[in-house]
Amino acid sequence: MSGVSEFEQRVAELIEAGRTLYRLGMVPATSGNLSARLTDGCLAITVSGRHKGRLTADDIMLIDAAGHSLDGRRPSAETGLHLQIYRRFPDAGAVLHPHSVNATLLSRGRRAPLVLTDYELLKAFPGVDTHAFALTVPVFANCQDIPALAAEVDDWMMRHQGPVHGYLIGGHGFYTWGATVDDALRHVEAFEFLFDCELRTGGMSRL
Amino acid sequence: MSGVSEFEQRVAELIEAGRTLYRLGMVPATSGNLSARLTDGCLAITVSGRHKGRLTADDIMLIDAAGHSLDGRRPSAETGLHLQIYRRFPDAGAVLHPHSVNATLLSRGRRAPLVLTDYELLKAFPGVDTHAFALTVPVFANCQDIPALAAEVDDWMMRHQGPVHGYLIGGHGFYTWGATVDDALRHVEAFEFLFDCELRTGGMSRL
Amino acid sequence: MSGVSEFEQRVAELIEAGRTLYRLGMVPATSGNLSARLTDGCLAITVSGRHKGRLTADDIMLIDAAGHSLDGRRPSAETGLHLQIYRRFPDAGAVLHPHSVNATLLSRGRRAPLVLTDYELLKAFPGVDTHAFALTVPVFANCQDIPALAAEVDDWMMRHQGPVHGYLIGGHGFYTWGATVDDALRHVEAFEFLFDCELRTGGMSRL
Amino acid sequence: MSGVSEFEQRVAELIEAGRTLYRLGMVPATSGNLSARLTDGCLAITVSGRHKGRLTADDIMLIDAAGHSLDGRRPSAETGLHLQIYRRFPDAGAVLHPHSVNATLLSRGRRAPLVLTDYELLKAFPGVDTHAFALTVPVFANCQDIPALAAEVDDWMMRHQGPVHGYLIGGHGFYTWGATVDDALRHVEAFEFLFDCELRTGGMSRL
Repeated sequence: MSGVSEFEQRVAELIEAGRTLYRLGMVPATSGNLSARLTDGCLAITVSGRHKGRLTADDIMLIDAAGHSLDGRRPSAETGLHLQIYRRFPDAGAVLHPHSVNATLLSRGRRAPLVLTDYELLKAFPGVDTHAFALTVPVFANCQDIPALAAEVDDWMMRHQGPVHGYLIGGHGFYTWGATVDDALRHVEAFEFLFDCELRTGGMSRL
Repeated sequence: MSGVSEFEQRVAELIEAGRTLYRLGMVPATSGNLSARLTDGCLAITVSGRHKGRLTADDIMLIDAAGHSLDGRRPSAETGLHLQIYRRFPDAGAVLHPHSVNATLLSRGRRAPLVLTDYELLKAFPGVDTHAFALTVPVFANCQDIPALAAEVDDWMMRHQGPVHGYLIGGHGFYTWGATVDDALRHVEAFEFLFDCELRTGGMSRL
Repeated sequence: MSGVSEFEQRVAELIEAGRTLYRLGMVPATSGNLSARLTDGCLAITVSGRHKGRLTADDIMLIDAAGHSLDGRRPSAETGLHLQIYRRFPDAGAVLHPHSVNATLLSRGRRAPLVLTDYELLKAFPGVDTHAFALTVPVFANCQDIPALAAEVDDWMMRHQGPVHGYLIGGHGFYTWGATVDDALRHVEAFEFLFDCELRTGGMSRL
Repeated sequence: MSGVSEFEQRVAELIEAGRTLYRLGMVPATSGNLSARLTDGCLAITVSGRHKGRLTADDIMLIDAAGHSLDGRRPSAETGLHLQIYRRFPDAGAVLHPHSVNATLLSRGRRAPLVLTDYELLKAFPGVDTHAFALTVPVFANCQDIPALAAEVDDWMMRHQGPVHGYLIGGHGFYTWGATVDDALRHVEAFEFLFDCELRTGGMSRL
């Protein structure tokens, strides 16, 4: 791929990730958002309001590490949540925010964190090598004030002892990340599978 | 696309919308119907009895704003319901009627309107900018007398204070609309997602 | 399509029908069988044991109206059930036997017929023009003696007053038919949709 | 296919099997593993950690009958479970380990074997010619010590009277096999269908 810039490579990966997420029913009706970090710290991120299952190069823009648009277009409304993850996790190269039915149902009205354990698929996450691992997935109340929500997430992560690989927002889906877009997609698949198991095991009253 | 008429463009969009709805399981066994409004007020609408997931140009006809066929073919039996929406909403450019299992189950035998609230995905609808919004989705009893049903729907809309973006017909699916076929599809995806959440939350357990 | 025989046309339609049924999850693990009647009364029918979702021309054979192989290969083990339908319904041009989870669950251990009513999608069946129609779907106990099972089905149909468009075999799927392969597929889609609704409405204890 | 080695043929079949399993939602997030036996007793087996839904020739390696890598790469962590099946069943030509939600839910925390009976689809398994057959599917506790788990499985198989065509590992999926990759896939489809039926019948309601 001579002559293809790093930005163009990330754009291609994000377009493909969006198609995959859409096929899995996880980005309906323009919901969700996707980003990837470049070597210089800038981010390729989906433009606000585009359908994530049918992205084209026009639907992905460049912003700097502080979230400022570098081409005049409006980035995702939830850009602040992506920035929080990139600041806290230096190795994060991609952030994906799907909006699945399972994640919406599991998180709606819930405050207590989910604790996922006794699943072989937990080994899909970095650093987990046994099904007996207990992975905590915090749930944050939905909020239209993104800076406030990002601060709440960051505060929880700072105080939490133990790994975190994703979090839920009430009635709104989940955020996960990875070193590459591919890794982040693997984490999306794993979380969605585990959310499905949890919903079907515990009854709908998972409060 | 020089030389392609406005009608032909709408036809192409409706054919594609039908394929999308079929892939999502929402137009089984020739059910459902789709239309789009042209600048002169005429409508492109699916011919009665064709499979909406496998439409060709032959399956979409032209009718005038009063619902009269302009080419001798028989329009959808539910044309009157499309006309009611176009009269009440001057900005509506497309009307889609999917026939999904979720919509059928949620509406069968039900009289009370659905009220959808505390879902981020409500922001997919025009004018909604918070998950706290409460969107009312009325339910009308199924009825083979389409003029009577259209009058009942129009009467409810006239008296209802607050936005309406779609409605359910008992055991029959739902109607939604948008400024374009694409917008209407976005509303279909959002409603179907929310119906799925409501069914699984409210006790219609999927066994 | 000059030069393509009637048999070859039916074979092509059955191959495509098999792919559709497989995409819908209705012919797993070589289950199910499909046939179409030719003008001379002979049948194109799937060879025993082939995967119905990946049929090729080699997987569909010719048998006479009495079920005898005309090319040395072994027709579907359930050929007798296809023959019964063609004899009782002179207009039947195709018979499809899907093996879906919904049909299996609804019929397993059940003896009482299903009565489907108050669904708009009932209008997908010939002669039904209102959702208030009550369609009876008999359930027969599974049985490896196909001639005995065919006789039981035929006897029920002879004594039943009112239309029948399909039947269930306990823990085994369902049979439906139509004037063409396309019509039969429409009936499959309609039945599968209605079975899904019934299962999710009534709880699993539909005995 | 002149010039294509036996290994290359098996590799092509496994790549296709992986795509099929992925489309069916059965190998999420790099889970699962697939193998096929060559005439000389060596095995083509998926490399550890690759996504089974997007395999390329680079993701499938050659190991000897004792499980030693023949090309320096690291075979699946669960290679020992594949070897156990090939030793016990001389006719086994392929082993597939899917990781579906149904299998995970059915097996999590369960010790008693599943007994599947009164399903027509049981006839998809070799030697079963009636729905009245009772097929036992043992469940083994999940364990990261693969040699210990393989020994436990082998011991059960040695003592069990009656056929076995697959087994479940708690919260981890299932193993099945066949004379060819195609046969093994048929068994996967049959088991997944039956697991779905059992979950929805036995009280693990899908909410």
